Formats: sequence, C-alpha cells, structure tokens
Amino acid sequence: MNQTIQTLLGLSVCLNALFISLGVWIILKRGGLSYLATRVPLLRKLGIKSTQGSPFNFPYYDHRKSQLSLLPVNASNIIFLGDSITDEGEWAELLNNPAIRNRGISSDTTIGVLDRLQDIIAPRPQKIFLMIGVNDLSNLGRSPADVVQTHKEILTQIREQSPQTNVFIQSVLPIHPSLFLGFVTNSNIQTLNEQLQRLANEFSYPYINLHAHFLGAHHQLDAQYTSDGIHLNGIAYQRWAKLIEPHVLP
Amino acid sequence: MNQTIQTLLGLSVCLNALFISLGVWIILKRGGLSYLATRVPLLRKLGIKSTQGSPFNFPYYDHRKSQLSLLPVNASNIIFLGDSITDEGEWAELLNNPAIRNRGISSDTTIGVLDRLQDIIAPRPQKIFLMIGVNDLSNLGRSPADVVQTHKEILTQIREQSPQTNVFIQSVLPIHPSLFLGFVTNSNIQTLNEQLQRLANEFSYPYINLHAHFLGAHHQLDAQYTSDGIHLNGIAYQRWAKLIEPHVLP
Repeated sequence: MNQTIQTLLGLSVCLNALFISLGVWIILKRGGLSYLATRVPLLRKLGIKSTQGSPFNFPYYDHRKSQLSLLPVNASNIIFLGDSITDEGEWAELLNNPAIRNRGISSDTTIGVLDRLQDIIAPRPQKIFLMIGVNDLSNLGRSPADVVQTHKEILTQIREQSPQTNVFIQSVLPIHPSLFLGFVTNSNIQTLNEQLQRLANEFSYPYINLHAHFLGAHHQLDAQYTSDGIHLNGIAYQRWAKLIEPHVLP
Repeated sequence: MNQTIQTLLGLSVCLNALFISLGVWIILKRGGLSYLATRVPLLRKLGIKSTQGSPFNFPYYDHRKSQLSLLPVNASNIIFLGDSITDEGEWAELLNNPAIRNRGISSDTTIGVLDRLQDIIAPRPQKIFLMIGVNDLSNLGRSPADVVQTHKEILTQIREQSPQTNVFIQSVLPIHPSLFLGFVTNSNIQTLNEQLQRLANEFSYPYINLHAHFLGAHHQLDAQYTSDGIHLNGIAYQRWAKLIEPHVLP
C-alpha cells in the first residue's frame, strides 16, 4: 500500500514537472518575463514592464515595419497611422482615394509610432489620420496620462518637421469587455480620449470623436461591429469611412 | 511518514487536475478538438479534421471577409488573391498601380478561397494573381493532390464565369523549417508546386515560379526574407513585386 502511494506520488510529481516545463517553455518561446508582463497586470504593477514597444505580434510587426520602410511616401499622400484597427482597414478602397497610404501596424503603440515617425513625416504628407493608444493601455499597462505624453511628442515632431501636414486626431474606440481578452477598461479609454481632445485643441489639430459613433449598450463597443470586442468588421469600416470622408476630401 | 506522503500525493494530484483543467480550458477556448487537429498531425491521421476552412485566425478572418465583401470589384481591377502572404503585401503601393485590389486573408486555404470566389469573379476582373495552398497543407493536413483538386475547382469556376480574366498561378513559396512552427515540409510544397504547374498548363493560365527565387541553402526559404520562416519582410515583397511586374502591366 505504502509502495503504491509512493509510486503514484512519483508519477504525479513527474507529471507536474512536465506541465510546468511545458508552461515555462511556451512562455520563454513567446518572450519570457517581458511577454508575461503584457498578460498579467500584477507583474506590471510590480514594475516588470515589456521592453518592446509592441510585445505581441513579433514577426508580423517586424515584417510589416520593414515593408513600409521601403515604400515611399510623398507630399500628396494621406496617411492612416495607427495600430491593428488602422492596419486592417483597406482605406484607399473604403474612401476611393489612391493617395491614401496605410501605415497602421497591428499591435503598435504610441511608442512604436514615435519610433517609426521619421519615415512618415520626412516627405511632409498632406494629411495624417492618427488613431493610437489602446495597446499602450492594454499591452503595456500605461496610464492614459503617460500615453498622452507620448502623443504630445508625436504631435510636436510633426508640427516642427512638417508644419503643413494636417493631423486628424481620432479618438480611440470603445471595446466590448465580455468579448475582449485584453486588459483595458472603457473608463480608461474614455479618460484617454478626454485628454486627447485637450491635446488636439492645444495643437489646433482637428479632433474626430469616432468613439461616440461606435457605442452600443452600457457605453461599450456595439457588438454589431465586432467578433472579438476590439477589432472591426466591414460594417464598422464603412461607418468609419463615412464619418471621416468630409475630412479626407480636399 | 505515511500521512505526509498521502498529503503530498493529494496536493500533487490537485495540481495535476489544475494543470489539466487549464490545458482543457485553453483548448476549448480556441476551438476544441477541431483546433487541436490543426496542431497535432496524429489527430489528423486518425481522421479528426478541422471543420473550419481557416481554423486559426477566427476573429481576423471574419472581420476581413466581411470588410472585403462590402468593397466593390470592377472589370479593370487586378486582384491579389490568397492567404496571409498575399494579405500582408501592400500591392497597390509595391506595384504603383491603383487598380490593384488585395483580396488575401490571413490563414486562408483553397477551401476558403473557393467559398468567397463569387464576390471576386462576378465583376469579371482583368487579372487575378493567385497564391494559395500552404495553409491547406499546414493547418488542415491535406495532401498536395487534394489541394490541387480544390485549385482545379477554383480555376474551373473562373474560366466558366469570367473567361476574359487572366489568372496568374503563383507557386507556393518555400518555408524555413527551423524558424516555422507549423506542420508543412518543403518536399510537400515542392510536390504541390509541380502539380500546380501541370494544372496551369491544363488551363493555359500562366504559371509563375516564384519559389525558385526565394530559395536559400538546403532548398529552404532564404532566411534573409523572413523572421518566422513563412511570412515575408520588405526585401521579399520588393523582390516579388519586381518578378511579377511585367505580368501586372498591360
């Protein structure tokens, strides 16, 4: 009997060791502690932060950044700059305008946008439609005030280096919390948007309140627009295009 | 002593149960057995197949399919049709041609393309650049012969419903096995391409052997083109665009 229990204990402990090793292996493969910090808010509160501007989508981010860096921008271009929500829109088609350039990259943050801003503003494009910040909140655990600080650096560089460019600051969109698996609240998004609107006024850039147009019940992203609580389907992109069309046209 | 071992056994078994529950929860969350079949070749050999055409990228696939279904195609358009490798290319920019429409969807298969073909061919576009099949091999565990059978259905529908459309059948690209986490071999890709070339001849559509231009050592995808062994960076897209440019121009 004692022998049997000891054997069972041995097996059970081995199985646990196997499970733990598997877990550690998966986490290491995805980027170790810095990856974990993007998934576990507690770690971020303990001061462990992701070292990457865009911790999630590693190969995709690198590939797309490298592709975009080789594609020229010119002074007649209208740039759509942001994260996945911008990236996933076929803007030139949605707005029937071949001058439009999609410069969204899935998983990007204000830090990532600041980092790749030079390629975009050096050719002094006509307009920039900017929507960025939800991944700062969700993936990097930054506060709205911190995020707006990086927005301010982005706008300062644009104003200084390309004063003719008109920047349309689009509000961050709401999420649908029960569908979305990330770490961000609609109340944080609301705070970010209020501060973004003040920042836009400060720079005399137009602020576009898209947020209000995508709300459903309980001040959440309307479920008709999304399958995962944050990204958008075709109806949402049609609506968005309609809302900004007057600003895209000269 | 006996008491201690029994307590330890109890704890260890509870931990076992916890880990197993966690694993089951994660798998169920991602789509259950059908998801597992996309990751474990053995299950596919046992006849458990994914019920989805595109088992991986659920919310993204739905969102993009819905967006594309609302964007019109016309007879002057040049369609890029395929999976992530097509989806991730900014083709209108790469080829400096506003008639180009990107109809790639990340994670798509020949089955998915067949399913959404009507929207694309009903308006009888000028040209279609097709690259599809690697996810059939990798995610659905289909054989090259099976995949080419679905290719044949795609080409038959195009030929019947839009005989003026010229279809450029692009070879599937090689992978870099030590960087790629999916289940596909370069030898299977090679077999698929040989059969695709025969199919192209059968239909008198041009076959474009991109595969040969992306090979590095050991007949693998050249590591200079990729961070994850299957998707492409900017240098690769520049090269691809250069190779097909003569076919895109009228």
